[in-house]
Amino acid sequence: MAVNLPPMEDPRPVDGIRIGVAATGEKGERPNVAVLALAPGSVTGGVFTRNAFQAPPVVVARTRMGATRALVVNSGNANAATGERGIADAKATCAHVASRLGVTAAEVAPFSTGVIGEFLNMAALARGVDAAVADLRADGWANAARAIVTTDTAPKAASREAVIGGTRIRATGIAKGAGMIRPNMATMLAFLGTDATLSERAAGALVRDLAERSFNRVTVDGDTSTNDAFVVMATGAAGAPAVQDGHGERYAALLSALTPLAADLAQRLVRDGEGATKFVTVRVEQGGNADECRRVAYAIAHSPLVKTALFASDPNWGRFCMAIGRAGVPLDQGAVGLYLDDVQVMANGLPTADYTEEAGAAVMSRDEFTVRVTLGRGVARETVWTTDLSPDYIRINADYRT
Amino acid sequence: MAVNLPPMEDPRPVDGIRIGVAATGEKGERPNVAVLALAPGSVTGGVFTRNAFQAPPVVVARTRMGATRALVVNSGNANAATGERGIADAKATCAHVASRLGVTAAEVAPFSTGVIGEFLNMAALARGVDAAVADLRADGWANAARAIVTTDTAPKAASREAVIGGTRIRATGIAKGAGMIRPNMATMLAFLGTDATLSERAAGALVRDLAERSFNRVTVDGDTSTNDAFVVMATGAAGAPAVQDGHGERYAALLSALTPLAADLAQRLVRDGEGATKFVTVRVEQGGNADECRRVAYAIAHSPLVKTALFASDPNWGRFCMAIGRAGVPLDQGAVGLYLDDVQVMANGLPTADYTEEAGAAVMSRDEFTVRVTLGRGVARETVWTTDLSPDYIRINADYRT
Repeated sequence: MAVNLPPMEDPRPVDGIRIGVAATGEKGERPNVAVLALAPGSVTGGVFTRNAFQAPPVVVARTRMGATRALVVNSGNANAATGERGIADAKATCAHVASRLGVTAAEVAPFSTGVIGEFLNMAALARGVDAAVADLRADGWANAARAIVTTDTAPKAASREAVIGGTRIRATGIAKGAGMIRPNMATMLAFLGTDATLSERAAGALVRDLAERSFNRVTVDGDTSTNDAFVVMATGAAGAPAVQDGHGERYAALLSALTPLAADLAQRLVRDGEGATKFVTVRVEQGGNADECRRVAYAIAHSPLVKTALFASDPNWGRFCMAIGRAGVPLDQGAVGLYLDDVQVMANGLPTADYTEEAGAAVMSRDEFTVRVTLGRGVARETVWTTDLSPDYIRINADYRT
Repeated sequence: MAVNLPPMEDPRPVDGIRIGVAATGEKGERPNVAVLALAPGSVTGGVFTRNAFQAPPVVVARTRMGATRALVVNSGNANAATGERGIADAKATCAHVASRLGVTAAEVAPFSTGVIGEFLNMAALARGVDAAVADLRADGWANAARAIVTTDTAPKAASREAVIGGTRIRATGIAKGAGMIRPNMATMLAFLGTDATLSERAAGALVRDLAERSFNRVTVDGDTSTNDAFVVMATGAAGAPAVQDGHGERYAALLSALTPLAADLAQRLVRDGEGATKFVTVRVEQGGNADECRRVAYAIAHSPLVKTALFASDPNWGRFCMAIGRAGVPLDQGAVGLYLDDVQVMANGLPTADYTEEAGAAVMSRDEFTVRVTLGRGVARETVWTTDLSPDYIRINADYRT
């Protein structure tokens, strides 16, 4: 079950990035290891889960952003809650990749997704790494998109190109896993490669700014995992002028060009959210600042009562009021407005005279629609993408062992 | 469906409080209006919803705590999202009660619970008030407990007594409504009467302190309503020495004596929570301060993944880690412990060597158990009571119109 999840676009190669995949045998014939090799001079930037419980690969990978030469990703086992041994395993995997690629272990960053609380099968993983390195190729993106999934219903990839400072640059991204797709299945992972030229500082700014406009704007159940990571890799192979930091016109142009790609990947994750039957955009406008807009948007997107109403196509504006009102923003309820797509439901904190339940229900029966709230406090606006809460969510999460 | 909800205790009269009920006809023969008349010299204190959307009766009632002489409660219609007309209706209802009791309108506080967005039927309510005033009696508590419910599966009442400063005092409380029992059904309401002697200031302190130890420690779905209210009424009829403020030994003794009564009522609300199949105590210990303990406890109690695991009796410690880790507390994951009743699941942030899924599942299959988390940061501790998330929750909230 997924809501209008588009098929994986044929992801285009990015000069300076080669990708190989292999099967360790833990998922039968299905490839579950990917190695991404970056040309010399490439830089990376990463953002990682803010959960206080961080899996060993996250602990290691966050120290290896910058002059990274390779990424190694395995799916099926998150190497999470594995303590010192998990750290050692993650580092040993990187050292093994490094030895095969002729780089140093510190230039390799590890990523894992899957079951929590089990140690990696190091022998199988080493064999998988060897086979993945032997498989390295420029057009390996689609294979990698397939290799990193766990319980996703489909692989996710997309490409974009743009002209920055007179030079055409290309970018391709892959991603997996919306919310906590399955119990004990950790992780959202996303990897975005581009042949633009970035300093390490600019790559760090870019990954944070892109995450803020994409992966940090999607929510399925509000829970976050031990392994979440998003990495930007920039090879410089297009020969475009370098972007030195997170300021200036050229950086802004690059951010604008890549935001739709990151947002596309993030929205694919939501569309593939567990038990999702609706794709809902929550837009909060006229806020005093961005933070209060986000608080209201997330209060709506996380309310079980709202999410159940979304599932039931029930234009229950009272539930939206509750959620808006509990966001912790000092609202004047008499200034609040509510719209479902183009239908105005409330004005000045009260239902409008010409609103009808039929009009509201007509919007909410769509599989995609926008809940728009106006706060009457200022000019800030923020958008969050979410899903409904269906009986399937509970079934998936409660019955997964049987 | 309710989890070990005890039958309503036979609530004992409180000297100085008379209660009458009546049916307006909107619920057929079922009484749905209650008037609580307080003897001269009584004082009240109230705490009200913090939701920014506040129903007209809340707006009016919060200004009428102190030297209150009567409360009027109706169920079935929350008089919420009714704007200026709702305010006028709430005030007119109070004025009508006042005229019948020979007090001033400003000495009467209104409370409503039920459907949102509809105007009160003022003619029916006036007839109900007249009949309720004619019905005033000392032993009306049980009738009132029944009159204020909406979709509760049973009425809720309890009594306690204690000796304060050498004088025996009595207290009786009634309550209704856990979480958002039904869509568009607002409200938790609770009323606690005692014949102890309190100043207005002490009554205000007492209601806040009691709420903090009871109603503010329960959660079903995290949503809060437009109409939530908890009121303490003190008549002084026992002739006990007056408690002047929220300090000192006598105040502490009164708070200790009444806390179990308020907690009992609050727990009854959770046990009657929508779709609840488990009653779960979440206890967070060894926090650096109370606030961070509460944040961790609520992160656990509100996590859809944890709540689904509670329903499924699934000892999925990874989900508890996620919830603990996302509470926004700067934890050292290596210091965290987790227990299910007496079974230690995790120590130092990792599963213990002798933990077995069988032992964890045995605890979680109970209909009541405690999830205990140790943070290793200090000596603060906090407790929250909650329920699981069952398919019935979604069914109740999604299908209520059909």
